Amino acid sequence: MTGGRAGAVPGRRGRRRDGDARGDILAAARRLFAERGYEGTSLRAVAREAGVDPALVHHYFAGKAELYGTVIGIGLDPAAARDRILAAGRDGGAVAILRVFLSVWEEPTTQERLRGLVTGLAAASPLQAAYRDFVADALLRPVMAELAVDQPDRRGALVASQLMGLAMARYVVRLEPLAGAPAEAVVADVAPTLHRYLVGALPEA
Amino acid sequence: MTGGRAGAVPGRRGRRRDGDARGDILAAARRLFAERGYEGTSLRAVAREAGVDPALVHHYFAGKAELYGTVIGIGLDPAAARDRILAAGRDGGAVAILRVFLSVWEEPTTQERLRGLVTGLAAASPLQAAYRDFVADALLRPVMAELAVDQPDRRGALVASQLMGLAMARYVVRLEPLAGAPAEAVVADVAPTLHRYLVGALPEA
Repeated sequence: MTGGRAGAVPGRRGRRRDGDARGDILAAARRLFAERGYEGTSLRAVAREAGVDPALVHHYFAGKAELYGTVIGIGLDPAAARDRILAAGRDGGAVAILRVFLSVWEEPTTQERLRGLVTGLAAASPLQAAYRDFVADALLRPVMAELAVDQPDRRGALVASQLMGLAMARYVVRLEPLAGAPAEAVVADVAPTLHRYLVGALPEA
Repeated sequence: MTGGRAGAVPGRRGRRRDGDARGDILAAARRLFAERGYEGTSLRAVAREAGVDPALVHHYFAGKAELYGTVIGIGLDPAAARDRILAAGRDGGAVAILRVFLSVWEEPTTQERLRGLVTGLAAASPLQAAYRDFVADALLRPVMAELAVDQPDRRGALVASQLMGLAMARYVVRLEPLAGAPAEAVVADVAPTLHRYLVGALPEA
């Protein structure tokens, strides 16, 4: 649709090495996510802002979720996480969700970044909203659409309520003995809750 | 132990009406909670800081928890809340905890204040730490000591994880349909989780 990847936008530098292009894409994405939120940012707009061909964005990032994950610096490939969870099916989904969730939070650098994002959620800045939409669009909604027996939105919100609280209690407030427990002990304690939210009987709404 | 309630501290105004004294106590408590946290603040120190007799602090506030609740402006009497929850016993405790929790958060002014406190918890300021200690000392620990069948700290942390997440999902992030659901529908959805955390079988630690 657009011209060559270099010099497609007037006023941008005409030629660059790939290493620069990837950095430019990330910088452009960071600006756009912060200005327009997750849903308001398209890969095409990122390419335009970075002055590169859209194909180059796709070359570096499998999709918007991967790009966003890289921008906020969490070591999570959303597509791979979805695959792991969905492969576990309805019976194992609760445990798989908890393992993916904990594997992300247990990584110290990621934990530091996520703590700020989670506790800033009330600030209603576009960057916080982008994080919320990213979690909802790239992870929660697709997983719930596959795994939940019915009422995916209601079940998804309940799952999210337990996961957000787990993050707050274990990583932000650091409530003991939850904060110091091995991840697998947390999985065992909390899995029945997520299992019921995913596939268990809910009272009539 | 100290002298008369007025003029006991050099440099303070000598005479005041009760209305002023209550306001002075609250202002002094706000300063001390912010400086020293919840656990580090005694009613005696508040009296000294306010320049009043300790008996006057007890006249206005049943205890430290009540004083703190008034300082942060949440419409909750912790002693009454504890009584309501404990009266429900082990079978009804989960529902009672959720009803008390939601009744506090549903009040718009309180919700506004709590939103800031909860999302500021990562800031590690004494005021945030004071809020955490208040919840733990005045509510969670006494309730868990009575209601939990065993391992009150482990069970209490799990209860707190679901409650914090419920607050985040319903009142901070405002995740639908959880945010718009009637409080009693939320109670019904979440009560089995709290019930298991309180009295259900937990995996061996």
